[in-house]
Amino acid sequence: MTSFSFELLHRSKKSDARVGRIHTPHGVIETPNFVAVGTNGTLKALDNAFVDDIGLQLMFCNTYHLLLQPGPEIVKQAGGLHKFINRKLPIITDSGGFQVFSLAYGGVASELKSCGSKKQGGLVLKITEEGALFRSYRNGEKVLLTPETSVAAQKDFGADIIIPLDELPPYHIAKSELKKSLDRTHRWEKRSLDAHLQSPQGQAMYAVIHGGIDPELRKESCRILTALDFDGFSIGGSVGKNKDEMHELLSYTMPLLPPEKPNHLLGIGDLTSIDRSIPLGIDTFDSSYPTRSARHGVLLTDQGNLNITKACYAADFSPVDPECECPTCTKFTRGYLHHLFKANEITSMSLATAHNLHYMVQHMRKCREMILNDEI
Amino acid sequence: MTSFSFELLHRSKKSDARVGRIHTPHGVIETPNFVAVGTNGTLKALDNAFVDDIGLQLMFCNTYHLLLQPGPEIVKQAGGLHKFINRKLPIITDSGGFQVFSLAYGGVASELKSCGSKKQGGLVLKITEEGALFRSYRNGEKVLLTPETSVAAQKDFGADIIIPLDELPPYHIAKSELKKSLDRTHRWEKRSLDAHLQSPQGQAMYAVIHGGIDPELRKESCRILTALDFDGFSIGGSVGKNKDEMHELLSYTMPLLPPEKPNHLLGIGDLTSIDRSIPLGIDTFDSSYPTRSARHGVLLTDQGNLNITKACYAADFSPVDPECECPTCTKFTRGYLHHLFKANEITSMSLATAHNLHYMVQHMRKCREMILNDEI
Repeated sequence: MTSFSFELLHRSKKSDARVGRIHTPHGVIETPNFVAVGTNGTLKALDNAFVDDIGLQLMFCNTYHLLLQPGPEIVKQAGGLHKFINRKLPIITDSGGFQVFSLAYGGVASELKSCGSKKQGGLVLKITEEGALFRSYRNGEKVLLTPETSVAAQKDFGADIIIPLDELPPYHIAKSELKKSLDRTHRWEKRSLDAHLQSPQGQAMYAVIHGGIDPELRKESCRILTALDFDGFSIGGSVGKNKDEMHELLSYTMPLLPPEKPNHLLGIGDLTSIDRSIPLGIDTFDSSYPTRSARHGVLLTDQGNLNITKACYAADFSPVDPECECPTCTKFTRGYLHHLFKANEITSMSLATAHNLHYMVQHMRKCREMILNDEI
Repeated sequence: MTSFSFELLHRSKKSDARVGRIHTPHGVIETPNFVAVGTNGTLKALDNAFVDDIGLQLMFCNTYHLLLQPGPEIVKQAGGLHKFINRKLPIITDSGGFQVFSLAYGGVASELKSCGSKKQGGLVLKITEEGALFRSYRNGEKVLLTPETSVAAQKDFGADIIIPLDELPPYHIAKSELKKSLDRTHRWEKRSLDAHLQSPQGQAMYAVIHGGIDPELRKESCRILTALDFDGFSIGGSVGKNKDEMHELLSYTMPLLPPEKPNHLLGIGDLTSIDRSIPLGIDTFDSSYPTRSARHGVLLTDQGNLNITKACYAADFSPVDPECECPTCTKFTRGYLHHLFKANEITSMSLATAHNLHYMVQHMRKCREMILNDEI
């Protein structure tokens, strides 16, 4: 089994952008790269064999969902997540914390609107130093998510890259509260790392840098977490209320991460953010944006987003993107895709998702080439 | 362009089962065969390139749906249905009548329950000798479906096999009323044939034999319609309230059809009905059963239906059918499919549909072999 390592191939002369290779037990991830979200062990509307074929090198699965359905025991019996879902290439899983705290605060968008008051807290029963107790939305059972239980689940899953449990404080929070949360997150991450290192199993663990939009706390988080033996570093917590705030945050955070280790920007993967963050040195991005927007008929092209449900595409018999070599563009037309969306056919979602995923794979390939040429 | 013809290869020594080849402009249909329903120009949850690859030789599309979305004008502009939907192999379209009369009577199942009283008649405005006037469920516009407009739409679609407009009387109907409906259907079919023959365009037209469950009227329908220059004959109208009644009906109807022409059983395609009807000489069957049941987690195997949503499959890491060579069985396990259904993933529907469709293709291949060996 190949152990985890990061190989830095090139640093741009023009920016902090860099090209590298993450070696994992299930193959190489070329960076910078996009990580599609396959919450339940599949991308929505595509199967994993197809996703492997299209060249998506890293897939993100959610521990929270897999913990409740099918449960870690089933995945372990199957021989791990790769075998269970039949994915040949690398997988990253998160800790489950994000979803538990989203339940408590109602997600980023609604939390921003409600200024941090708890919206859907019914499923989260208690958050203590030990961890978070919540109720399964599937069967009503109480589930305790601690640094140790999260790592145990992620050991059963056997993803190539795993994430320690963190607390996700809301965007609107007093600095003193954020500091308390940060300290707890650091203690949880340390406990996660200790649990992980008891049996590494070839897996790598990425720390989650927190601190919200407070530069001082972000710096503290970098200082504390980079002192520990993590294999990589992800940027988590609230990364700002808009793209400018995120850009500023990354500008002062990224230089504090060790360049010899890979990094990841959690939950961000729209094209604008990717293109603005690559010059700051981000290696990988995960987001459900390209797959979710596909299911709403929004198709990605170099000429901008194309909303295929618009009437102007009804009699357009050209491919979505004439330059694109994806199975959708080589076989079907805009007019047919428009029709499938209008007729509410599930097939529309598969074809659109295949295109957007292929687009992301190609876009990241082009970005890597541009960095190698010092054009980014 | 190959013109339409039927080649009878073998008649079983054991029954009236037969093996043949229907030659069409888009290739050969080996008979007996199963015809999957792709109402809107796609099978649900699969794309047409995949459906071609799996070897489904004939696909059924519905004129009623395509008439309202995208409309015949768009399909014509695209260069016909094959080009529009990117299907290389043969297509059959119906007249649209079935759906219009289903709207009037609320479908077979609810009609059987309501004893023929109109249930959802709101969308059907008027049925006269000219045709049926109904309201589009898409935009509220009035649409007149006549023998001539139906044929015109099917000319724009350019399917290999087309169907004349018929009236679909309810199962519960007085014989005098059924006779009146039958006479009108015969007049409509004659008008359809005349319209079709004005520009055949390489298309074949199958008559629809009517007469409900009345042997006398079925015989009359066969007598009148086989005297006309149709390329094949389909069995339509009410075919009985259960499988025994249908079997009886086919037993006295099939011998009245010319053996040198192909026949089709409309809307019936469950495995029991197929296996009971092949010995009576049926050539093709269309049904949404295998694809619809797939979307509910019912998988077809030689050992019977397997309901993958049952808890017993959660930790079953064998394929749905170990003998099956479909992409689903060769790549994924029962446990994973079970999980995908439990997690409400769209991918579950694609994988299950692929299996069931492959199963039907293989089942019909086996049936043809058995007939060639006089085992059916």
